[in-house]
Amino acid sequence: MKTLILVSHPKVEESGTQEFLKTSAGSLDNTTWRYIDKRYQDHQLVVADEQKLLRQFDRIVFQFPMYWYSSPASLKRYMDDVFTRNFVVAKQGLKGKELGLVLTLGDSVKDFQAGGREKFTISELMRPFEAFANKAGMTYLKPFVISQFGYLDVSEKQRLLVAYLQYLSASMPLTFEVREKWLIDRLKRLKSDKADQQQQLLDLIIESIDSRQDQINDLKLTVKMIRDQEE
Amino acid sequence: MKTLILVSHPKVEESGTQEFLKTSAGSLDNTTWRYIDKRYQDHQLVVADEQKLLRQFDRIVFQFPMYWYSSPASLKRYMDDVFTRNFVVAKQGLKGKELGLVLTLGDSVKDFQAGGREKFTISELMRPFEAFANKAGMTYLKPFVISQFGYLDVSEKQRLLVAYLQYLSASMPLTFEVREKWLIDRLKRLKSDKADQQQQLLDLIIESIDSRQDQINDLKLTVKMIRDQEE
Repeated sequence: MKTLILVSHPKVEESGTQEFLKTSAGSLDNTTWRYIDKRYQDHQLVVADEQKLLRQFDRIVFQFPMYWYSSPASLKRYMDDVFTRNFVVAKQGLKGKELGLVLTLGDSVKDFQAGGREKFTISELMRPFEAFANKAGMTYLKPFVISQFGYLDVSEKQRLLVAYLQYLSASMPLTFEVREKWLIDRLKRLKSDKADQQQQLLDLIIESIDSRQDQINDLKLTVKMIRDQEE
Repeated sequence: MKTLILVSHPKVEESGTQEFLKTSAGSLDNTTWRYIDKRYQDHQLVVADEQKLLRQFDRIVFQFPMYWYSSPASLKRYMDDVFTRNFVVAKQGLKGKELGLVLTLGDSVKDFQAGGREKFTISELMRPFEAFANKAGMTYLKPFVISQFGYLDVSEKQRLLVAYLQYLSASMPLTFEVREKWLIDRLKRLKSDKADQQQQLLDLIIESIDSRQDQINDLKLTVKMIRDQEE
């Protein structure tokens, strides 16, 4: 699966969060980064080329800090320029693809709810993107929200890293099984460039995850049998 | 009351709807127009000047064609540039003002509902603006939606014109009484530069509206008395 990450951020080089995400994703194949603001600054954005590029990907991710309850202006400009009605509606150039959002927030997610300081949920505020996905025939993915990155400790950042990589590269929806399978794939790939002893250790970990998955499958089967008998 | 209309439209000179609105509003005093895209093109937009300008108005209206379920990019750019956190949150530069939206749609409003082709309502899609008004301490006005302007006939356009002028200049919420009062004010102002005969005609119209208002007030009083007796 190929993923395109469109980053909209007017000062991306000053953002610690964006740097962290870029470094994290560095280990993934099949992932392409695109800094929208930079391309506009350098006058490198050619609509026809951009549309051709988009067609090559299965998952398109808009990644941005939330500015006034939406993306920064550069993403909107990109959408207005590149997502022409002809490309999106007539030619259905994005049909069947997935649309993901990676949002960074300065405030706590808890503020975003009825009765909270910001009154509306992230789901509500991102409706224009959801409506776009709907119009374009895309599958809208649950937004990936990173709030108050600066306050995260090391272990929280590690968990964020894994969850982010999964958001970019695992199949959706992200069930427990998908996550396990994704993890095993990653470990297997990791093995190849390690020394023998480390390879054995990684094998043990993979086996342990695998057997846990088997146990879960057994349990599921048992539950199903009991249910079937009850009916 | 002073109203600022911020128009976001990349090709405003080609838009029949925008021309109609501009001509309509031409008869209003205390109304200032600002073409955002043009100011950016001419490099005339100075953030500090813009903030100073905004402070002078009681009602700020964002006027734009809906592009991908939001405003065109230029309004977002304006918001990102001019509505700094310092201006909006720390200095509360917009507090107590009203925020209106004048939206033009190519599709029918009926498409915008659960089960409709566009799935979401205009209210839902405009949440980011509502959330902004909330944050800025502004009163969010019911959006003024113009759909499929090209299909309107002459009498529909006349009604649109009056409703639009009221949206820009009448006090809110727009109750029946507010509309009548607004109409009488307009007629009185109209009178001054007319010939005697026309003045008399306008006087008759004003009297007729006034007496209708008196009748309504009488009816309201009667209803109130009946209710009071019932309790």
